[in-house]
Amino acid sequence: MHIPTFRRARGSDLAAIVGLLADDPIGRLREDAAEPLLAAYRDAFAAIEADPNQLLAVATEDGQVVGTLQISFIPGLSRKGMWRGQIEAVRIAASHRGQGLGGHAFEWALEQCRARGCALVQLTTDRDRPDAHRFYEQLGFTASHLGYKKAL
Amino acid sequence: MHIPTFRRARGSDLAAIVGLLADDPIGRLREDAAEPLLAAYRDAFAAIEADPNQLLAVATEDGQVVGTLQISFIPGLSRKGMWRGQIEAVRIAASHRGQGLGGHAFEWALEQCRARGCALVQLTTDRDRPDAHRFYEQLGFTASHLGYKKAL
Repeated sequence: MHIPTFRRARGSDLAAIVGLLADDPIGRLREDAAEPLLAAYRDAFAAIEADPNQLLAVATEDGQVVGTLQISFIPGLSRKGMWRGQIEAVRIAASHRGQGLGGHAFEWALEQCRARGCALVQLTTDRDRPDAHRFYEQLGFTASHLGYKKAL
Repeated sequence: MHIPTFRRARGSDLAAIVGLLADDPIGRLREDAAEPLLAAYRDAFAAIEADPNQLLAVATEDGQVVGTLQISFIPGLSRKGMWRGQIEAVRIAASHRGQGLGGHAFEWALEQCRARGCALVQLTTDRDRPDAHRFYEQLGFTASHLGYKKAL
């Protein structure tokens, strides 16, 4: 594997990112990666770019997008005013899975959280993804919480 | 119980909110509610106020703060550019627990999420809080995820 590069996503990455979100058994049912992209994706990208506490990132290799994740930097009063970093929407291209790219992506993401003064990083993952659980536990995460969701 | 009022928190509520965060077996060890408040709390409050995607709220009764919660409105590409609301740091004053105030606070919070166009609301709660689990399940939340955390 070549050395991946991590950077903030640009508008020109949007179709590739949506393609990664759709390339997953669950994502296939939820997303629509057909071009031209739905306006809802463009609106969401604009909302992320307008918010200085959101960092949508891509991993690239030879100029191609091969991974993505989003970090939300969340200010809060708890724990003496601690900032926390929250990682969501982590995806690695099928062609690049099982090669350590996820680990590199997390190292990079944790470094972004440290640089923003976060003392805690958090994420949730589906209860039915044991491979993901092992991955996060190897990275030093603890499954101390339950993640509840409700559709509105 | 009088009818509680819910509103965005003001600077003058800050000491009362930190007092609620500290009035909990876990919070007691993590927070410092002594006045004058630590600068870190004031900095965090300013960061929350400066971020239009954060809503720190209080419940008041007869002008007294009797509850607090924070909503983060998170833009994202997943699920066709869906916004999600995330609820954290929910606390009810000891004098007002067991009287339905938590349920009212959640009704209000979910309404704020709908008004901001969120199609999903999410939260995490400690695995060792079975009472909280029952409460969220009664409100229609599903514990579909595990919540992982890592200190930096």
